[in-house]
Amino acid sequence: MDHECNLTVRSYECDSYGHVNNAIYLNYLEFARHSYLHDNGISVGELRASGHGLLVARIDIQYRRPAYTDDRLVIRTRAVRKMRIGGVLEQTVLRGEEVVATAQVTWVCVDGRGRPARLPPAFEREGFNP
Amino acid sequence: MDHECNLTVRSYECDSYGHVNNAIYLNYLEFARHSYLHDNGISVGELRASGHGLLVARIDIQYRRPAYTDDRLVIRTRAVRKMRIGGVLEQTVLRGEEVVATAQVTWVCVDGRGRPARLPPAFEREGFNP
Amino acid sequence: MDHECNLTVRSYECDSYGHVNNAIYLNYLEFARHSYLHDNGISVGELRASGHGLLVARIDIQYRRPAYTDDRLVIRTRAVRKMRIGGVLEQTVLRGEEVVATAQVTWVCVDGRGRPARLPPAFEREGFNP
Amino acid sequence: MDHECNLTVRSYECDSYGHVNNAIYLNYLEFARHSYLHDNGISVGELRASGHGLLVARIDIQYRRPAYTDDRLVIRTRAVRKMRIGGVLEQTVLRGEEVVATAQVTWVCVDGRGRPARLPPAFEREGFNP
Repeated sequence: MDHECNLTVRSYECDSYGHVNNAIYLNYLEFARHSYLHDNGISVGELRASGHGLLVARIDIQYRRPAYTDDRLVIRTRAVRKMRIGGVLEQTVLRGEEVVATAQVTWVCVDGRGRPARLPPAFEREGFNP
Repeated sequence: MDHECNLTVRSYECDSYGHVNNAIYLNYLEFARHSYLHDNGISVGELRASGHGLLVARIDIQYRRPAYTDDRLVIRTRAVRKMRIGGVLEQTVLRGEEVVATAQVTWVCVDGRGRPARLPPAFEREGFNP
Repeated sequence: MDHECNLTVRSYECDSYGHVNNAIYLNYLEFARHSYLHDNGISVGELRASGHGLLVARIDIQYRRPAYTDDRLVIRTRAVRKMRIGGVLEQTVLRGEEVVATAQVTWVCVDGRGRPARLPPAFEREGFNP
Repeated sequence: MDHECNLTVRSYECDSYGHVNNAIYLNYLEFARHSYLHDNGISVGELRASGHGLLVARIDIQYRRPAYTDDRLVIRTRAVRKMRIGGVLEQTVLRGEEVVATAQVTWVCVDGRGRPARLPPAFEREGFNP
């Protein structure tokens, strides 16, 4: 099952075209991943306290339709690949049935020195597997 | 020849890891494209006044190394593909010799109603061709 | 009665101290004013279509306590002064009973040329009066 | 003598009015204070390593004129008050001779637990005194 979270576009997130600015979508995706981790039992704060960090290595995002102030968006997140030190997520931004944007996000787990590290056991949960 | 522009990382662009936040790189790339257009004789303002807009359709960005407050970065932009209604740019964020991030950015020209439109003659300049 | 709206702090809104960055509070206040207007029957979009704009002339904000990722905040907005061309709002950011920040925001109505303009009749509603 | 620093408005800093968004000015002021500290011999990084932090307690900003993409701005910073645990700065955003915004910024020094702390000796420099 895909993870879903909701948000409403805020006025200050729109640029001079009146559209949500391209960079803001990366904020939305980060917000959704934070929620996805939380709802699968992982607190980023605790992870950091245990000496692990999660870094994004790559984002490939396609912008399909503009979004506007007050639009209610749903962000769907699902694992499409899992490796020993990270994985790939597919994230979709929807407005009702319409696809606003889609992204593939590659993430890796790092240790306190920023080197790739094996995923902690908490990532064995079903929600993290394709 | 590649287009280059410079910027210095500002403190408020860094997140709780002390790194430049992922979304901020998209701001940097937009800043560099704006400068690239300007230095090739295109004003986004005039383009809009003439009923054209430039939209980003896709960004595929790879984060290679973190960047920090006060880092001096160079952003290199070059055309790698050109079509009748848009093109693909390669943008590289450098700190000295180190590659901080690389991105492929697909852009399209649209008319006043947001439909794909043929590029205006101003885009015939050499800087816009691979 | 004061207007209230809710939001949850997002990870990307925090800076390298792990606190919500000072500038982000102004985003929160704008978001709350947008909601306050909407809930009092005013759409910023329609207002603009009718040739009016609302500008902020002054913000005096006091930061009392830091806020952190995932904090649930309430923003309370109430009119403390009303003039023919604008007014003053008091906005309070709360986390439970704790005051996180307080602000006085002076706003003015402008016409299409950016000159101060008399408030449209829609602003006669009770919610806009102290 | 006042401290000065320069910046050029970037496209993504403008909102749907085409103006620099109100919150962005606080980013500009932070950028200017960072530069002001640096040019007076203080590195925020070293300060933190020594167990001190600088927090903003209050910002009172007046917006006088809109600023637009590509505007070249100067930000002037000067100390108007100094206390044992902090001070007040006056910051002015200028475009040529025009005043775009003015702000009074109250800041305090804190220790590792976030409690007000006496300023370290580095703040005895002339640039920090009114």
